Amino acid sequence: MKKKGLLIVVSGPSGAGKGTVCSALLKKNDFWMSISATTRQPRTGEQDGVNYYFLTKKDFESKIKNEDFLEYAEVYGNYYGTPKQYALEAIGQGKDVILEIDIQGALKVKESYPQGVFVFILPPSMKELKHRIISRGSETPESLMTRFKSAYKEINYVSKYNYAVINDTVENAVETIQSIIIAERCRVDRVKDEILNSKEGIINEQLYD
Amino acid sequence: MKKKGLLIVVSGPSGAGKGTVCSALLKKNDFWMSISATTRQPRTGEQDGVNYYFLTKKDFESKIKNEDFLEYAEVYGNYYGTPKQYALEAIGQGKDVILEIDIQGALKVKESYPQGVFVFILPPSMKELKHRIISRGSETPESLMTRFKSAYKEINYVSKYNYAVINDTVENAVETIQSIIIAERCRVDRVKDEILNSKEGIINEQLYD
Repeated sequence: MKKKGLLIVVSGPSGAGKGTVCSALLKKNDFWMSISATTRQPRTGEQDGVNYYFLTKKDFESKIKNEDFLEYAEVYGNYYGTPKQYALEAIGQGKDVILEIDIQGALKVKESYPQGVFVFILPPSMKELKHRIISRGSETPESLMTRFKSAYKEINYVSKYNYAVINDTVENAVETIQSIIIAERCRVDRVKDEILNSKEGIINEQLYD
Repeated sequence: MKKKGLLIVVSGPSGAGKGTVCSALLKKNDFWMSISATTRQPRTGEQDGVNYYFLTKKDFESKIKNEDFLEYAEVYGNYYGTPKQYALEAIGQGKDVILEIDIQGALKVKESYPQGVFVFILPPSMKELKHRIISRGSETPESLMTRFKSAYKEINYVSKYNYAVINDTVENAVETIQSIIIAERCRVDRVKDEILNSKEGIINEQLYD
């Protein structure tokens, strides 16, 4: 029996830095990164199958009907979704799959794949979160306040996750997530059957050799 | 609110190497190692409060009555037990406490302290387990077979634990347990209240500064 990979869902409030953490995590490890599907138009330089899978609205909706997505959402008239098949194939081949996703998406993935590892990235403080949102520079005072209040509310969703990782430095956050992955690979829920089966397999030949 | 330490219970079948793993773990980390209490006589060189707490039978039995032990057992007419007070004090001060203990003891600790981290040390294979039991040199063929069969049965208890760690090399086992400890410190069950409380504390002063 081949050992299954893990689905590691990295999520958290806007401004917590989940994108940066995931990029750093992928650079250091042989993970399989999930690529989203979308119906929005490709921007200049974006490649199908690299940045996104670009689908027509008709194709996307037929895939929704077939339950081909781990989760999907409609944002400003465009669909975005996480294809199920590729991720489950990689997991079946023993690869760990990283999925960077917003909180609503993560909660939907948890419904369809509860055995995933759900990691919530936290800013070191609300002050730092505000600073990060400001330093992006693209916000008006009003939209800043809206984003900040929304991030503040989103932190309540931490209780739906398995782990909370403080992103004080990207390096620390990456190391913590790597430890979480090592720990999860040893969780008895995941390895129990394998241990008990392999024990059965060797007892007769080895007890009396 | 001061962050609590973890109680890490390292256990497993005879011959899996839990003693060696714990010693190596303690050398590399600032953990607090639990010291057992016993009613057996001190051997030459053994010191009270270092190797064991040496108690009279009467004192031990009064402590049993007071529920002063996380677990205890009677072996060949002597009592052995894990004092509760010192371990809980260290945990309350934020220290991680390591407890190396046999399977029966670990299951009793789990009843009284289910929030502990229960780690089951496995030999890399049953063949290697046999080899380790033989190489101790103090066994007759009959007692070897008894010990081996008992270790074989004990492996079934893995399902009562949180984590299974294969002791292929002591270094790997120690690194894996260190990762488990880092991961457990981020488990949402443990840190949720702290996150939500600290969020409440800072929102008013920081939103409008």
